[in-house]
Amino acid sequence: MAIDYQSLAVRGVQALSPYQPGKPIDELARELGLDPADIIKLASNENPLGPSEKALAAAREALSELCLYPDGNGFDLKQALSARLAVGMDQITLGNGSNDVLEVIARCFADPDAEVVYSQYAFAVYPLVTQAIGATGVSVPARDWGHDLDAMAAAVTERTKLVFVANPNNPTGTVHKAADIETFLAKIPERVLVVLDEAYCEYLTGDAYPDGVQLLSRFPNLIVCRTFSKAWGLAALRVGYSISSPAIADVLNRVRQPFNVDTLALAAATAVLADDAYLERSREVNSAGLRQLEQAFDRMGLAYIPSAGNFVAVDVGEQAQAVYEALLARGVIVRPVAGYGMPRHLRVSVGLPEQNARFIEALEQSLAALGQGS
Amino acid sequence: MAIDYQSLAVRGVQALSPYQPGKPIDELARELGLDPADIIKLASNENPLGPSEKALAAAREALSELCLYPDGNGFDLKQALSARLAVGMDQITLGNGSNDVLEVIARCFADPDAEVVYSQYAFAVYPLVTQAIGATGVSVPARDWGHDLDAMAAAVTERTKLVFVANPNNPTGTVHKAADIETFLAKIPERVLVVLDEAYCEYLTGDAYPDGVQLLSRFPNLIVCRTFSKAWGLAALRVGYSISSPAIADVLNRVRQPFNVDTLALAAATAVLADDAYLERSREVNSAGLRQLEQAFDRMGLAYIPSAGNFVAVDVGEQAQAVYEALLARGVIVRPVAGYGMPRHLRVSVGLPEQNARFIEALEQSLAALGQGS
Repeated sequence: MAIDYQSLAVRGVQALSPYQPGKPIDELARELGLDPADIIKLASNENPLGPSEKALAAAREALSELCLYPDGNGFDLKQALSARLAVGMDQITLGNGSNDVLEVIARCFADPDAEVVYSQYAFAVYPLVTQAIGATGVSVPARDWGHDLDAMAAAVTERTKLVFVANPNNPTGTVHKAADIETFLAKIPERVLVVLDEAYCEYLTGDAYPDGVQLLSRFPNLIVCRTFSKAWGLAALRVGYSISSPAIADVLNRVRQPFNVDTLALAAATAVLADDAYLERSREVNSAGLRQLEQAFDRMGLAYIPSAGNFVAVDVGEQAQAVYEALLARGVIVRPVAGYGMPRHLRVSVGLPEQNARFIEALEQSLAALGQGS
Repeated sequence: MAIDYQSLAVRGVQALSPYQPGKPIDELARELGLDPADIIKLASNENPLGPSEKALAAAREALSELCLYPDGNGFDLKQALSARLAVGMDQITLGNGSNDVLEVIARCFADPDAEVVYSQYAFAVYPLVTQAIGATGVSVPARDWGHDLDAMAAAVTERTKLVFVANPNNPTGTVHKAADIETFLAKIPERVLVVLDEAYCEYLTGDAYPDGVQLLSRFPNLIVCRTFSKAWGLAALRVGYSISSPAIADVLNRVRQPFNVDTLALAAATAVLADDAYLERSREVNSAGLRQLEQAFDRMGLAYIPSAGNFVAVDVGEQAQAVYEALLARGVIVRPVAGYGMPRHLRVSVGLPEQNARFIEALEQSLAALGQGS
């Protein structure tokens, strides 16, 4: 009798549904017979600016080394991060995107007996990495679409090993101020690790928001995660990192695959850190684009969740899936978030002004076609 | 009292020693104050040819997409592999190097109660991924430096979930013929998965050696792993893959990180598959280099393990660590394998003719300086 190999998988994996990425442009082009050049994708919170010239030049130069393994220690990138963030190189753990770092953290510190706390509507990778281990995920109901930090602290039990906090959070765009994060951290026992996922932190402006790195000296159980995929514009290359105490970094680096970040990625990320002008333009384009989208939603009478990221979740009503498909038919890819328990919302990434305008036009047409026009 | 975060790590991780990669050229240059251009590295089984022009062109073209996430499904690469290997796209699982695939397999099918069987002197990643899970590794004594396949089959118990077979094996270079592999596979219960790691298979010539892909239809519990890091010359970019039944691939793809292979890697790997001339040159340079090294060892009276890979393990005597260091001082990096339980051997990767000659000269000088000259 044939073996059911799914039944041989470890417990957590048997029931796992994989992460659903934004629909690729080429896939939609194949499905609808469209020209890829006529499609815009505002579905994956990518930087619409195109890459930094400094990152491009560094990646191009590193092409000569394709046959050689990457520097498994990521010396140059760690040195550049160390200088920029004023942390020790031994506090840094590099990952194949911050997804990799988040997974390595879970695998290092949570086992099937562990509980892992995160918020309702928080980034999908937290429950995924928890379930793959067979640990118990504890999803704490959100407050105003954001983390209910008091309730999350109260959800910590003897079995809790990890708490994930996304600040700002994806897909809601909600953010907590520094004082709230500090109050929260003070409530968490030191034996419980807190992962502060700051994938979108480069878009924050003003002193009111926390810089997780500044909190490390006061909270030894803190791990701060960041990425080059958003404001730094290197999503294609998969580079993320965590900053923690050296002791925690030592554990993470044991489990990290020895060559998890590739040569071109290391080169481009190191170079882009020297391109503050690029970061500044990323911020400007993003804040102008957010305003453009918000004003359109206001005009159309659509509720949205005020966002601190490079995306915004907009309430398009009960037919959100139909609106999503109507947008696809018009060559505009956004992200449905029903899988996050947000069946009325679509998440749209901030694009260039003309991309935002095209999305807004397509949204108006789609809503009108579905009889939901304003 | 300060918390010991290492003690909070899961059981397997607490005792884990990370993989030790070959010493990077830049690191040796920093340590010895040498010019990196004067150092040769024959320590990581890298392709000495330099990259395929087709791979380079494809990677260069993909640079324009640095801001965009990779295609998480790897459509183009899977399509090219599917055509080349005559397997379904749904049989392929892509990894960030084959290291990633090996780890995902272990995490999907082995839990802390599982036993995982591999050979003495087999690739270091097998015990590492086993231990990170907290599973029990069963190392079966080798026969003539190669896998003792009969003993490995006999080591399978009720608790065994996985068996790793490297063919050819790294770091010994040993290989088993098709008939032996088939006899072995016929002895393994179908509920136990066999991972046939063919990272070096492109260097094999002749019909006597197995092509794991041809065995998949007869052995549904088989997973074949391959890589673009060796004969295909793309170690920098981290692309590996497995071929298995669709059912097993479905499980692996749930746990695989959604963007584990980056955009430039996908582009370069897809392109290099169309460059058979490059593969042919890789094979020719390798077999000529192996002969060059073997003849030198014969002349010097040094025993070596006949190799089917792009490297050879040579017995340099009890002072192998001192010989390694003497080679370093001469700007030649090879790989000590004492960590594999082979304290008398050094593993040297096959280089270009002039690199091999420089290694041979440095080895003769080093042995003479240590009073071990032939």
